[in-house]
Amino acid sequence: MKRVNVGDSECPISQSVERVGDWWSLLLVLDAFLGFTRFEQFQENLRISPGILTRRLKTLVKDGVLERRKYNARPPRYEYLLTASGHELLPLLVALYTWGSARTAPDARSMLLTDRGGRAIRPLLIDADTGQPLTPANTFFTAGPAASPPFRDYLDHAPRFLRRPHAEG
Amino acid sequence: MKRVNVGDSECPISQSVERVGDWWSLLLVLDAFLGFTRFEQFQENLRISPGILTRRLKTLVKDGVLERRKYNARPPRYEYLLTASGHELLPLLVALYTWGSARTAPDARSMLLTDRGGRAIRPLLIDADTGQPLTPANTFFTAGPAASPPFRDYLDHAPRFLRRPHAEG
Repeated sequence: MKRVNVGDSECPISQSVERVGDWWSLLLVLDAFLGFTRFEQFQENLRISPGILTRRLKTLVKDGVLERRKYNARPPRYEYLLTASGHELLPLLVALYTWGSARTAPDARSMLLTDRGGRAIRPLLIDADTGQPLTPANTFFTAGPAASPPFRDYLDHAPRFLRRPHAEG
Repeated sequence: MKRVNVGDSECPISQSVERVGDWWSLLLVLDAFLGFTRFEQFQENLRISPGILTRRLKTLVKDGVLERRKYNARPPRYEYLLTASGHELLPLLVALYTWGSARTAPDARSMLLTDRGGRAIRPLLIDADTGQPLTPANTFFTAGPAASPPFRDYLDHAPRFLRRPHAEG
Protein backbone atom coordinates (compact mmCIF):
# COMPACT_ATOMS: atom_id res chain seq x y z
CA MET A 1 0.00 0.00 0.00
CA LYS A 2 1.16 3.46 -0.84
CA ARG A 3 2.38 5.13 2.32
CA VAL A 4 0.90 8.42 3.29
CA ASN A 5 2.90 11.58 3.62
CA VAL A 6 2.30 13.25 6.96
CA GLY A 7 2.72 16.48 5.06
CA ASP A 8 -0.45 15.70 3.13
CA SER A 9 -3.40 17.94 3.68
CA GLU A 10 -5.19 15.22 5.62
CA CYS A 11 -3.24 15.78 8.82
CA PRO A 12 -4.70 18.70 10.80
CA ILE A 13 -1.31 19.40 12.36
CA SER A 14 0.21 19.67 8.92
CA GLN A 15 -2.73 21.83 7.80
CA SER A 16 -2.14 24.22 10.66
CA VAL A 17 1.55 24.27 9.93
CA GLU A 18 0.82 25.19 6.34
CA ARG A 19 -1.79 27.78 7.20
CA VAL A 20 0.32 29.62 9.70
CA GLY A 21 2.99 29.58 7.02
CA ASP A 22 6.12 29.76 9.05
CA TRP A 23 7.17 30.25 12.62
CA TRP A 24 7.88 33.89 12.13
CA SER A 25 4.28 34.49 11.19
CA LEU A 26 3.47 33.42 14.71
CA LEU A 27 5.58 36.23 16.11
CA LEU A 28 3.39 38.49 14.02
CA VAL A 29 0.37 36.88 15.65
CA LEU A 30 1.96 37.53 19.06
CA ASP A 31 2.35 41.16 18.09
CA ALA A 32 -1.30 41.27 17.11
CA PHE A 33 -2.22 39.70 20.47
CA LEU A 34 -0.28 42.46 22.16
CA GLY A 35 -2.53 44.90 20.35
CA PHE A 36 -0.23 46.13 17.61
CA THR A 37 -2.18 46.63 14.42
CA ARG A 38 -0.11 48.64 11.96
CA PHE A 39 2.46 47.82 9.36
CA GLU A 40 5.04 50.21 10.82
CA GLN A 41 4.59 48.71 14.30
CA PHE A 42 5.07 45.15 13.07
CA GLN A 43 8.08 46.26 11.10
CA GLU A 44 9.65 47.98 14.08
CA ASN A 45 8.94 45.14 16.49
CA LEU A 46 9.96 42.29 14.24
CA ARG A 47 12.67 44.07 12.26
CA ILE A 48 11.82 42.46 8.99
CA SER A 49 11.95 43.96 5.54
CA PRO A 50 8.79 45.59 4.19
CA GLY A 51 8.66 43.03 1.38
CA ILE A 52 8.70 40.03 3.68
CA LEU A 53 6.25 41.67 6.08
CA THR A 54 3.86 42.48 3.24
CA ARG A 55 3.97 38.87 2.06
CA ARG A 56 3.38 37.46 5.53
CA LEU A 57 0.51 39.80 6.28
CA LYS A 58 -1.08 38.89 2.96
CA THR A 59 -0.79 35.18 3.77
CA LEU A 60 -2.26 35.61 7.24
CA VAL A 61 -5.17 37.61 5.80
CA LYS A 62 -5.75 35.00 3.09
CA ASP A 63 -5.71 32.24 5.69
CA GLY A 64 -8.23 34.03 7.89
CA VAL A 65 -5.90 34.77 10.80
CA LEU A 66 -5.82 38.54 10.34
CA GLU A 67 -8.41 40.93 8.98
CA ARG A 68 -7.26 43.95 6.99
CA ARG A 69 -9.35 47.02 7.77
CA LYS A 70 -9.22 50.53 6.41
CA TYR A 71 -8.97 53.01 9.25
CA ASN A 72 -8.39 56.12 7.21
CA ALA A 73 -10.02 57.03 3.90
CA ARG A 74 -7.71 59.72 2.52
CA PRO A 75 -4.96 58.75 2.33
CA PRO A 76 -6.05 55.10 2.55
CA ARG A 77 -4.52 53.48 5.62
CA TYR A 78 -5.01 49.92 6.79
CA GLU A 79 -4.67 48.09 10.04
CA TYR A 80 -4.54 44.38 10.78
CA LEU A 81 -6.67 42.77 13.45
CA LEU A 82 -6.90 39.21 14.66
CA THR A 83 -9.99 37.39 13.44
CA ALA A 84 -11.86 34.89 15.63
CA SER A 85 -9.70 32.22 14.06
CA GLY A 86 -6.60 34.27 14.86
CA HIS A 87 -7.65 34.57 18.48
CA GLU A 88 -7.93 30.79 18.57
CA LEU A 89 -4.16 30.65 18.13
CA LEU A 90 -3.75 31.63 21.79
CA PRO A 91 -3.20 27.99 22.91
CA LEU A 92 -0.43 27.71 20.31
CA LEU A 93 1.30 30.83 21.64
CA VAL A 94 0.84 29.60 25.20
CA ALA A 95 2.30 26.19 24.28
CA LEU A 96 5.36 27.84 22.73
CA TYR A 97 5.66 30.17 25.71
CA THR A 98 5.40 27.31 28.21
CA TRP A 99 7.89 25.11 26.44
CA GLY A 100 10.37 27.94 26.13
CA SER A 101 9.93 29.09 29.73
CA ALA A 102 10.38 25.61 31.16
CA ARG A 103 14.01 25.81 30.03
CA THR A 104 14.65 29.09 31.86
CA ALA A 105 15.00 29.59 35.63
CA PRO A 106 12.11 31.66 37.04
CA ASP A 107 14.27 34.68 37.87
CA ALA A 108 15.83 34.58 34.40
CA ARG A 109 12.51 34.90 32.58
CA SER A 110 11.90 37.96 30.44
CA MET A 111 8.26 37.27 29.74
CA LEU A 112 5.45 35.95 31.88
CA LEU A 113 1.95 34.76 31.24
CA THR A 114 -0.30 36.55 33.69
CA ASP A 115 -3.89 37.36 34.37
CA ARG A 116 -5.28 40.88 34.22
CA GLY A 117 -3.88 41.69 37.65
CA GLY A 118 -0.37 40.46 36.92
CA ARG A 119 -0.62 37.11 38.73
CA ALA A 120 1.37 34.40 36.94
CA ILE A 121 -0.72 31.81 35.14
CA ARG A 122 0.31 28.14 35.13
CA PRO A 123 -1.21 26.82 31.89
CA LEU A 124 -2.56 23.29 32.00
CA LEU A 125 -4.05 21.33 29.15
CA ILE A 126 -6.93 19.12 30.18
CA ASP A 127 -9.66 17.00 28.67
CA ALA A 128 -12.72 19.25 28.97
CA ASP A 129 -14.99 16.26 29.59
CA THR A 130 -13.03 14.52 32.34
CA GLY A 131 -10.87 17.31 33.73
CA GLN A 132 -7.84 15.04 33.39
CA PRO A 133 -4.55 16.68 32.37
CA LEU A 134 -3.43 15.50 28.93
CA THR A 135 -0.15 13.60 28.96
CA PRO A 136 1.74 11.57 26.37
CA ALA A 137 0.52 8.48 28.23
CA ASN A 138 -3.20 9.20 27.90
CA THR A 139 -3.42 11.09 24.63
CA PHE A 140 -3.49 9.44 21.22
CA PHE A 141 -3.67 10.64 17.64
CA THR A 142 -5.96 8.21 15.87
CA ALA A 143 -7.67 7.89 12.49
CA GLY A 144 -10.85 9.92 12.03
CA PRO A 145 -13.97 9.18 9.93
CA ALA A 146 -12.58 10.81 6.79
CA ALA A 147 -9.12 9.21 6.91
CA SER A 148 -8.06 7.79 3.57
CA PRO A 149 -6.90 4.16 3.62
CA PRO A 150 -3.20 5.10 3.56
CA PHE A 151 -3.57 7.73 6.25
CA ARG A 152 -5.59 5.34 8.42
CA ASP A 153 -2.92 2.73 7.81
CA TYR A 154 -0.23 5.20 8.87
CA LEU A 155 -2.00 6.03 12.14
CA ASP A 156 -3.30 2.52 12.88
CA HIS A 157 0.13 1.00 12.38
CA ALA A 158 2.04 3.60 14.33
CA PRO A 159 4.24 1.63 16.73
CA ARG A 160 2.89 3.42 19.77
CA PHE A 161 -0.67 2.62 18.77
CA LEU A 162 0.15 -1.02 18.17
CA ARG A 163 1.76 -1.51 21.55
CA ARG A 164 -0.96 0.51 23.28
CA PRO A 165 -2.89 -2.30 24.97
CA HIS A 166 0.07 -3.98 26.62
CA ALA A 167 3.19 -1.82 26.81
CA GLU A 168 1.25 1.18 28.03
CA GLY A 169 -1.74 -0.61 29.51
CA MET B 1 15.04 54.08 23.31
CA LYS B 2 16.15 51.31 21.04
CA ARG B 3 13.21 49.11 20.24
CA VAL B 4 13.46 45.42 20.92
CA ASN B 5 13.21 42.78 18.28
CA VAL B 6 10.62 40.15 19.18
CA GLY B 7 12.93 37.73 17.43
CA ASP B 8 15.54 38.36 20.09
CA SER B 9 16.38 35.47 22.34
CA GLU B 10 14.60 37.11 25.25
CA CYS B 11 11.15 36.11 24.08
CA PRO B 12 10.35 32.51 25.10
CA ILE B 13 8.00 32.13 22.14
CA SER B 14 10.79 33.15 19.82
CA GLN B 15 13.18 30.82 21.66
CA SER B 16 10.84 27.90 21.15
CA VAL B 17 10.40 28.81 17.52
CA GLU B 18 14.15 28.80 17.08
CA ARG B 19 14.68 25.58 18.99
CA VAL B 20 12.08 23.60 17.14
CA GLY B 21 13.75 24.92 14.01
CA ASP B 22 10.93 24.86 11.54
CA TRP B 23 7.41 23.62 11.29
CA TRP B 24 8.40 20.47 9.51
CA SER B 25 10.50 19.44 12.46
CA LEU B 26 7.24 19.30 14.36
CA LEU B 27 5.88 16.71 11.97
CA LEU B 28 8.97 14.71 12.86
CA VAL B 29 8.05 15.15 16.52
CA LEU B 30 4.52 13.92 15.71
CA ASP B 31 6.06 10.86 14.10
CA ALA B 32 8.12 10.29 17.23
CA PHE B 33 4.96 10.65 19.34
CA LEU B 34 3.36 7.97 17.18
CA GLY B 35 6.24 5.72 18.15
CA PHE B 36 8.32 5.81 15.00
CA THR B 37 12.00 5.84 15.88
CA ARG B 38 14.07 5.08 12.80
CA PHE B 39 15.52 7.10 10.00
CA GLU B 40 13.87 4.98 7.30
CA GLN B 41 10.47 5.31 8.98
CA PHE B 42 10.72 9.09 9.22
CA GLN B 43 11.87 9.23 5.64
CA GLU B 44 8.97 7.10 4.43
CA ASN B 45 6.35 8.94 6.47
CA LEU B 46 7.54 12.45 5.78
CA ARG B 47 8.91 11.91 2.28
CA ILE B 48 11.87 14.16 2.71
CA SER B 49 15.35 13.74 1.33
CA PRO B 50 17.92 11.93 3.48
CA GLY B 51 20.04 15.08 3.63
CA ILE B 52 17.26 17.27 4.99
CA LEU B 53 16.11 14.56 7.39
CA THR B 54 19.67 14.10 8.70
CA ARG B 55 19.97 17.82 9.30
CA ARG B 56 16.64 18.07 11.08
CA LEU B 57 17.32 15.07 13.28
CA LYS B 58 20.69 16.52 14.21
CA THR B 59 19.09 19.83 15.17
CA LEU B 60 16.40 18.15 17.25
CA VAL B 61 19.05 16.09 19.05
CA LYS B 62 21.22 19.16 19.66
CA ASP B 63 18.22 21.04 21.02
CA GLY B 64 17.32 18.24 23.40
CA VAL B 65 14.05 17.21 21.75
CA LEU B 66 15.23 13.82 20.52
CA GLU B 67 17.79 11.42 21.92
CA ARG B 68 19.92 9.39 19.52
CA ARG B 69 20.46 5.88 20.81
CA LYS B 70 22.43 2.98 19.38
CA TYR B 71 20.23 -0.08 19.18
CA ASN B 72 22.61 -2.31 17.27
CA ALA B 73 26.37 -2.58 17.69
CA ARG B 74 27.51 -4.22 14.47
CA PRO B 75 26.65 -2.68 12.15
CA PRO B 76 25.99 0.43 14.23
CA ARG B 77 22.33 1.41 14.00
CA TYR B 78 20.65 4.30 15.73
CA GLU B 79 17.14 5.18 16.72
CA TYR B 80 15.64 8.47 17.81
CA LEU B 81 13.49 8.80 20.89
CA LEU B 82 11.69 11.76 22.39
CA THR B 83 13.39 13.16 25.47
CA ALA B 84 11.42 14.51 28.43
CA SER B 85 11.67 17.91 26.77
CA GLY B 86 10.40 16.39 23.53
CA HIS B 87 7.40 14.89 25.30
CA GLU B 88 6.62 18.34 26.63
CA LEU B 89 5.85 19.38 23.07
CA LEU B 90 2.53 17.53 23.30
CA PRO B 91 0.57 20.75 24.08
CA LEU B 92 2.07 22.29 20.96
CA LEU B 93 0.96 19.35 18.81
CA VAL B 94 -2.47 19.43 20.47
CA ALA B 95 -2.76 23.18 19.83
CA LEU B 96 -1.93 22.70 16.15
CA TYR B 97 -4.32 19.75 15.95
CA THR B 98 -7.14 21.68 17.60
CA TRP B 99 -6.71 24.75 15.47
CA GLY B 100 -6.60 22.69 12.29
CA SER B 101 -9.57 20.53 13.27
CA ALA B 102 -11.76 23.49 14.16
CA ARG B 103 -11.78 24.35 10.47
CA THR B 104 -13.01 20.91 9.41
CA ALA B 105 -16.51 19.47 9.86
CA PRO B 106 -16.51 16.54 12.33
CA ASP B 107 -17.29 13.93 9.69
CA ALA B 108 -14.58 15.29 7.41
CA ARG B 109 -11.81 14.82 9.96
CA SER B 110 -9.01 12.42 9.16
CA MET B 111 -7.38 12.51 12.55
CA LEU B 112 -8.78 12.56 16.07
CA LEU B 113 -7.34 13.14 19.49
CA THR B 114 -8.57 10.30 21.68
CA ASP B 115 -7.93 8.60 24.96
CA ARG B 116 -6.63 5.06 25.22
CA GLY B 117 -10.07 3.65 24.55
CA GLY B 118 -10.75 5.74 21.45
CA ARG B 119 -13.05 8.32 23.07
CA ALA B 120 -12.55 11.76 21.51
CA ILE B 121 -10.77 14.27 23.72
CA ARG B 122 -11.82 17.92 23.79
CA PRO B 123 -8.64 19.75 24.76
CA LEU B 124 -9.05 22.75 27.03
CA LEU B 125 -6.36 25.08 28.26
CA ILE B 126 -6.89 26.26 31.81
CA ASP B 127 -5.08 28.10 34.57
CA ALA B 128 -3.95 25.28 36.86
CA ASP B 129 -4.45 27.42 39.95
CA THR B 130 -7.96 28.70 39.28
CA GLY B 131 -9.34 26.15 36.84
CA GLN B 132 -10.42 29.01 34.57
CA PRO B 133 -10.14 28.45 30.80
CA LEU B 134 -7.55 30.73 29.26
CA THR B 135 -8.99 33.18 26.75
CA PRO B 136 -7.57 36.19 24.93
CA ALA B 137 -9.55 38.33 27.38
CA ASN B 138 -7.95 36.98 30.56
CA THR B 139 -4.46 36.06 29.42
CA PHE B 140 -1.61 38.54 29.10
CA PHE B 141 2.00 38.38 28.06
CA THR B 142 3.86 40.69 30.44
CA ALA B 143 7.45 41.55 31.28
CA GLY B 144 9.30 39.12 33.56
CA PRO B 145 12.04 39.75 36.15
CA ALA B 146 14.86 39.38 33.63
CA ALA B 147 13.34 41.56 30.90
CA SER B 148 15.82 44.04 29.47
CA PRO B 149 14.65 47.66 29.44
CA PRO B 150 13.80 47.57 25.71
CA PHE B 151 11.94 44.27 25.99
CA ARG B 152 10.07 45.52 29.06
CA ASP B 153 9.26 48.67 27.15
CA TYR B 154 7.96 46.62 24.24
CA LEU B 155 5.64 44.56 26.46
CA ASP B 156 4.62 47.38 28.81
CA HIS B 157 3.72 49.64 25.94
CA ALA B 158 1.87 47.07 23.91
CA PRO B 159 -1.45 48.71 22.99
CA ARG B 160 -3.49 45.90 24.50
CA PHE B 161 -1.62 46.18 27.77
CA LEU B 162 -2.06 49.94 27.87
CA ARG B 163 -5.80 49.78 27.34
CA ARG B 164 -6.13 46.84 29.73
CA PRO B 165 -7.69 48.57 32.75
CA HIS B 166 -10.51 50.31 30.92
CA ALA B 167 -11.23 48.88 27.45
CA GLU B 168 -11.16 45.31 28.74
CA GLY B 169 -12.01 46.01 32.37
